[in-house]
Amino acid sequence: MSADLFEFLCRMGDNCLILGHRVSEWCGHAPVLEEDIALANTALDLIGQTQLWLGLAGEVEGKGRSADDLAFLRDAWDFRNVLLVELPNGDFGQTLMRQFLFDAWQELMLSALTQSSEPRVAEIAQKAVKEVAYHVERSGDTVIGLGDGSAESHARMQAALDLLYPYVGELFESDAVDQAMVKAGIAPDPESLRAAYDAKLAQVMGEATLTLPDDRFAHKGGRTGRMHTEHLGHILTEMQWLQRAYPGASW
Amino acid sequence: MSADLFEFLCRMGDNCLILGHRVSEWCGHAPVLEEDIALANTALDLIGQTQLWLGLAGEVEGKGRSADDLAFLRDAWDFRNVLLVELPNGDFGQTLMRQFLFDAWQELMLSALTQSSEPRVAEIAQKAVKEVAYHVERSGDTVIGLGDGSAESHARMQAALDLLYPYVGELFESDAVDQAMVKAGIAPDPESLRAAYDAKLAQVMGEATLTLPDDRFAHKGGRTGRMHTEHLGHILTEMQWLQRAYPGASW
Repeated sequence: MSADLFEFLCRMGDNCLILGHRVSEWCGHAPVLEEDIALANTALDLIGQTQLWLGLAGEVEGKGRSADDLAFLRDAWDFRNVLLVELPNGDFGQTLMRQFLFDAWQELMLSALTQSSEPRVAEIAQKAVKEVAYHVERSGDTVIGLGDGSAESHARMQAALDLLYPYVGELFESDAVDQAMVKAGIAPDPESLRAAYDAKLAQVMGEATLTLPDDRFAHKGGRTGRMHTEHLGHILTEMQWLQRAYPGASW
Repeated sequence: MSADLFEFLCRMGDNCLILGHRVSEWCGHAPVLEEDIALANTALDLIGQTQLWLGLAGEVEGKGRSADDLAFLRDAWDFRNVLLVELPNGDFGQTLMRQFLFDAWQELMLSALTQSSEPRVAEIAQKAVKEVAYHVERSGDTVIGLGDGSAESHARMQAALDLLYPYVGELFESDAVDQAMVKAGIAPDPESLRAAYDAKLAQVMGEATLTLPDDRFAHKGGRTGRMHTEHLGHILTEMQWLQRAYPGASW
């Protein structure tokens, strides 16, 4: 059980870590100051959640690894994030589309996890779900504003949705780890969140005048560690450089 | 003297290392197979020269550092390459313009170094100058072909020259290290190479129908280690990642 729980917690934490790092790339580059600060805050929330998930993962593993150790000293094959969060930012609209597609899932997952039989998981979820409720409101509003905006912004948002939608299915994948979590009452079956997710997407994309692709084909492999995109390695070289070059460096 | 010689050898080696790494980024991406192979070969020549220069630097330093140690375990502030070689590749034409501006200098410098009073320096120069004679012929021909080509290629090459020319002056900078090399008969005064360089540029740019900028303003600081562009740190994170993550890893 503790091996499965460790795996589950890495999946939760790595999603936050990699997306947080991606979003932080916008710092100082967003189109207006308000958005720059908002993106930086989102990134900070995600990194804060990472510390909680990976901190608990290290505790559950019982080998003395800290959240920092897990973040900075694992190599690509040990990461368990979904492929969606490691994709490049693209333009501002694409970044916000990716954010919405993730936020909408994360809110549902965290809401379910507030009822977890594992009190430490429930506690993290209770804290994080408040932040994420705000994230999804914000990213959803932006998707609507840009989708139902100018011809140019509409076209870009449709292109972003077409590009990213094939990475959504992985969020609802289920394997032995998930089944172990379900049996122990720790986490819901990912598949059980899909209907509510689809409803949320239908509503937001409708308001945004964007068309959801019919095809349910899904790129997979990240959350099980079978394969990542080439982008993850590049993220890690940047993200881990300081700890790799100066082992044990601290503030 | 050995501290000055170490510095001089790092300057020679770091130019080759950083440019070699930059050029290697083209591997698998060049416009045609012939150019892809040619660029990869140029990169390999430069990395080979790096091993000789930095190997001798480590020997002269006498602290047991190998060429690999110097390449992979120094941080940005210890690098002594000119800024020109760390600039991004841009398009194919810009890469070849940078290559030509460097090759033309390197050929003159190496030719002079074949007469060095330090036999180990003369030996490296004799080997390297043969490779570089081929590099400069090739990059010069490409600058001419693209400069005196279509309206599009001409405009791109002129833009590349305008962008890169302000980084040429640093190659001819002279400081106490250079003066120590001149006094010992190890290396020429960089300034003494400028007239021949200007003549070469005038000839090639003339054939290429490109206009050399009048302004002699020069970005400086790389070869003295006072400052590098932001690009160097990114190069190092990529280049050094493996040795940083897996210290002592070897084939």
